[in-house]
Amino acid sequence: MKKVAIVHHSGYGHTTRQAAAVRDGAAAAGADAKLYSVTELDDTAWGELAAADAIIFGAPTYMGSVSAPFKDFMDKSSKVWFTQGWKNKLGAGFTNSASQSGDKLNSLVQLAIFGAQQGMIWVSAGMMPGNNSSTGSVSDLNRLGSYIGVMAQSNSDQGADAMQDSDLATAAELGKRVAKAAVAFNAGAL
Amino acid sequence: MKKVAIVHHSGYGHTTRQAAAVRDGAAAAGADAKLYSVTELDDTAWGELAAADAIIFGAPTYMGSVSAPFKDFMDKSSKVWFTQGWKNKLGAGFTNSASQSGDKLNSLVQLAIFGAQQGMIWVSAGMMPGNNSSTGSVSDLNRLGSYIGVMAQSNSDQGADAMQDSDLATAAELGKRVAKAAVAFNAGAL
Amino acid sequence: MKKVAIVHHSGYGHTTRQAAAVRDGAAAAGADAKLYSVTELDDTAWGELAAADAIIFGAPTYMGSVSAPFKDFMDKSSKVWFTQGWKNKLGAGFTNSASQSGDKLNSLVQLAIFGAQQGMIWVSAGMMPGNNSSTGSVSDLNRLGSYIGVMAQSNSDQGADAMQDSDLATAAELGKRVAKAAVAFNAGAL
Amino acid sequence: MKKVAIVHHSGYGHTTRQAAAVRDGAAAAGADAKLYSVTELDDTAWGELAAADAIIFGAPTYMGSVSAPFKDFMDKSSKVWFTQGWKNKLGAGFTNSASQSGDKLNSLVQLAIFGAQQGMIWVSAGMMPGNNSSTGSVSDLNRLGSYIGVMAQSNSDQGADAMQDSDLATAAELGKRVAKAAVAFNAGAL
Repeated sequence: MKKVAIVHHSGYGHTTRQAAAVRDGAAAAGADAKLYSVTELDDTAWGELAAADAIIFGAPTYMGSVSAPFKDFMDKSSKVWFTQGWKNKLGAGFTNSASQSGDKLNSLVQLAIFGAQQGMIWVSAGMMPGNNSSTGSVSDLNRLGSYIGVMAQSNSDQGADAMQDSDLATAAELGKRVAKAAVAFNAGAL
Repeated sequence: MKKVAIVHHSGYGHTTRQAAAVRDGAAAAGADAKLYSVTELDDTAWGELAAADAIIFGAPTYMGSVSAPFKDFMDKSSKVWFTQGWKNKLGAGFTNSASQSGDKLNSLVQLAIFGAQQGMIWVSAGMMPGNNSSTGSVSDLNRLGSYIGVMAQSNSDQGADAMQDSDLATAAELGKRVAKAAVAFNAGAL
Repeated sequence: MKKVAIVHHSGYGHTTRQAAAVRDGAAAAGADAKLYSVTELDDTAWGELAAADAIIFGAPTYMGSVSAPFKDFMDKSSKVWFTQGWKNKLGAGFTNSASQSGDKLNSLVQLAIFGAQQGMIWVSAGMMPGNNSSTGSVSDLNRLGSYIGVMAQSNSDQGADAMQDSDLATAAELGKRVAKAAVAFNAGAL
Repeated sequence: MKKVAIVHHSGYGHTTRQAAAVRDGAAAAGADAKLYSVTELDDTAWGELAAADAIIFGAPTYMGSVSAPFKDFMDKSSKVWFTQGWKNKLGAGFTNSASQSGDKLNSLVQLAIFGAQQGMIWVSAGMMPGNNSSTGSVSDLNRLGSYIGVMAQSNSDQGADAMQDSDLATAAELGKRVAKAAVAFNAGAL
């Protein structure tokens, strides 16, 4: 059973709900999927990350890039970087913010560059865009049209319970895709 | 009267309509604003760009970055780069694509980096985001939530005539802002 | 006298030395230039930032983007964002890391996007690249070839006292350029 | 035998030499590796790309992003995009320019975003950085410190024959890594 770790930060619960959808998608595809919060990472958790086949990173986009608590986790992982402890693991990313674009792509690129520094192999969203024609709607999968990771858009004046089902379904698809990729990829051969 | 040049490429007319809105906004703010197509730039046009106070760049986002014809213009401007002929001019950018996010931010960053190579001063969109709360709508100004430049979203199965009024109003605001900035900025003092 | 604020974080002193060079360059060009550390920003300091004509942001690049303490400052500035308190101020950026490229560009783009969210006008480095021909050397100004901000490279096993003079001179040039731009730009007209 | 295609553009021969090193590295690791030029892609070549297990993209960085001829290839591949013909293939990228940083990272991010639009899985450079300590030198592998792809730096006044051996060795390592990853990855399971 492949181990898929989802490491995230959430300010108000939206990104946690998105992260849980990623986890559920990975689990539905047969992975041993587990959710971690960057504010509660103890030595055991770091050890589990070291043993994971894939790590999916997620954070809200604040002021155009991943939230400071998530960046703190990234900086702490420099210890792992020195020994390239995550080299050849699969990586992927997701983010949430209030605006439709809202510079979310910058957060996803930041995560992909981070994954590359860690020597990881980056799994794209793998979904065609929705909500981009006269017959499309916000209910479409990948309604924001994101590729290097997955996006959600949550209204600034509403709680996590008001999130779009489509955004959660999109997140779940990423989880499934990474879980399948973990089975398909024999990291030990690299 | 400040000269504001809008240089753009358009594959199917959407970006031309967006570019015209930028020009009209700049003209409404009192600038001598002129629209150029990258496929029709003769020596006279290059001379006018050299004499402009501000140049606003616009292109559709194709496959995650500015269209090849626009990139061809960027590459040709390397002659200007060698003499830093556009140094200290104001710059700004806009882009259009079918998806809501659609990696449009990557095109705007590409344009901002290009402007920086040319020694320009980059004018941000300067608009708060719309369409990001339960009371928002696609009719809001800056409905996609873009900052380092301006975005439009046009359905893949509809012509330029079906573009959102809000996207054109947003483009016009960028033109106005750059025109005002050109008055406010005494490039000769740099 | 124009007010230029330099807000920075430094892990081991290198970025502080780079920041001090930026400040000295701005002061040499006639600005009232002041250095701030993100870990010591009290209400008075936030008030001074609100009154500044230009804010120059600087941080080390850790794991491919600005350090977590600097990101914490960026996130805290969301209060300013809500009222667009820094709108139309000039902005600029700088970063330091051990590798030659080392994904430093991603930090500078992150800062430029942040500045755009704050409604700022972004000042490019404005220097031609050095150290890129058979007659070039690490002593050249802008030896790393950076444009949307300024870079320094500091060996991982040496302290701030071993930084390249060229990197400090490059930082000083950015300070001078922003100070001059602050004089040239009448933000009130925007 | 896994098929690894290297698709590139080169203005003056440097990037072709870099691309050849990537190919040789892939071949040395046991792949059926073939070099393609974007200016000579006929239907047969497009068919071979469709049959490849991995495609490595390479172009010079001109004015801060990949050269226009390479972007033209990217735009033409939108036909492939509509059918997601390259989905789940491995992808990777490389670039060359005269400056040390020279905004090369922006080209690599552009390629990674492009690969993600095509549904590819992105292989990082997988090398620790060199030339970043008092004992380092330009002869080090990954001397520029790049992760999401591979960089070369070639002096603006010298031909491809003067390229750094280290840059070619770094390119070869990328080829080897992608060839091994192609063996390790069972794309059909995705």
